[in-house]
Amino acid sequence: MDYYGSELSRLIDELSLLPGIGRKSAQRLAFHLIGLPEEKVEKLASTMVSARKNIRYCKECFTLTDKDICPICASKDRDHRTIMVVEDTRDLAAYEKTGKYNGVYHVLHGAISPMLGIGPGDIRLKELMRRLEKDVDEVIIATNNSLEGETTAMYISKLIKPTGIKCSRIASGVPVGGDLEYVDEVTLLRALEGRVEL
Amino acid sequence: MDYYGSELSRLIDELSLLPGIGRKSAQRLAFHLIGLPEEKVEKLASTMVSARKNIRYCKECFTLTDKDICPICASKDRDHRTIMVVEDTRDLAAYEKTGKYNGVYHVLHGAISPMLGIGPGDIRLKELMRRLEKDVDEVIIATNNSLEGETTAMYISKLIKPTGIKCSRIASGVPVGGDLEYVDEVTLLRALEGRVEL
Repeated sequence: MDYYGSELSRLIDELSLLPGIGRKSAQRLAFHLIGLPEEKVEKLASTMVSARKNIRYCKECFTLTDKDICPICASKDRDHRTIMVVEDTRDLAAYEKTGKYNGVYHVLHGAISPMLGIGPGDIRLKELMRRLEKDVDEVIIATNNSLEGETTAMYISKLIKPTGIKCSRIASGVPVGGDLEYVDEVTLLRALEGRVEL
Repeated sequence: MDYYGSELSRLIDELSLLPGIGRKSAQRLAFHLIGLPEEKVEKLASTMVSARKNIRYCKECFTLTDKDICPICASKDRDHRTIMVVEDTRDLAAYEKTGKYNGVYHVLHGAISPMLGIGPGDIRLKELMRRLEKDVDEVIIATNNSLEGETTAMYISKLIKPTGIKCSRIASGVPVGGDLEYVDEVTLLRALEGRVEL
């Protein structure tokens, strides 16, 4: 690829290392960046560097944030007695987008996976148990609906049971707007098992 | 989106301004960047800034490069008497990837488009004509096979005719490996018109 000259090739090479960015997209991005005003490129570059530098885990819930305590844990308007346990910060963001959950979160940063050699000690479980020593009414387990997520949910519920704190799991079933025809069998069975009386 | 804290939100916002990067991809990229070692993020950032600073047009063929004269124009192994005219640097790259073209290029940076108000004076046409004052055997027009590309090809061929220099257009037809069934009618007709005797 030396027909671009080394600087441009290097930029394309580095961009194509990013996840979901292939050779073609990297090329397109590189050309776009070169066409931008110099100060815009500098701004993006410095945002990247400073975000990387300043973002850390919230000391309370372990979500990614640029403060010691994230805005959710710091808020007085949230119900600190209800903790939703999620696998990562993106899952937290997904629930925040609904705008209807008013409790706080706990981010595990992963799920238990014997296959990948990830045990209970590799995710933020100890930190969750420590939080339960304070006043907590309910733990809502919102790990993914995958083998790992389910395993993790089971494991957590067993840990919590002796404490007497209410422990729930988000419902599994047919997605809203989902056409039964296109829903997989396992989900259909789950939806049937979890049916609610009308 | 303030549940991420301002630094992370800002990074996601800026990344989602890039072409082909939606909100979700921007989120994924941001999380990826935050997970990288600090020096890798700094390297990517500085590559971006320095590429934007140092990349300019080749004084000969107007491709994007970080030198005054691009590696192709500077090469003694290339045939400088054959010039392929392309719309942009990516098209040049596409032909370079074939590894079979040994001439040089001329990058127009656009195509004539009355619809978008782009006239012959808005692309690097004058610069092409100036190059033809030196010894040139053939100009191969490789603008896109679109309305604008075709218009540009016609326009250039009319300008070149009086000079007596050979002027050709890359062939139009069914792509190699293309199934006739899925090829559009215009292409099929072009392939028919351009049939070659066996």
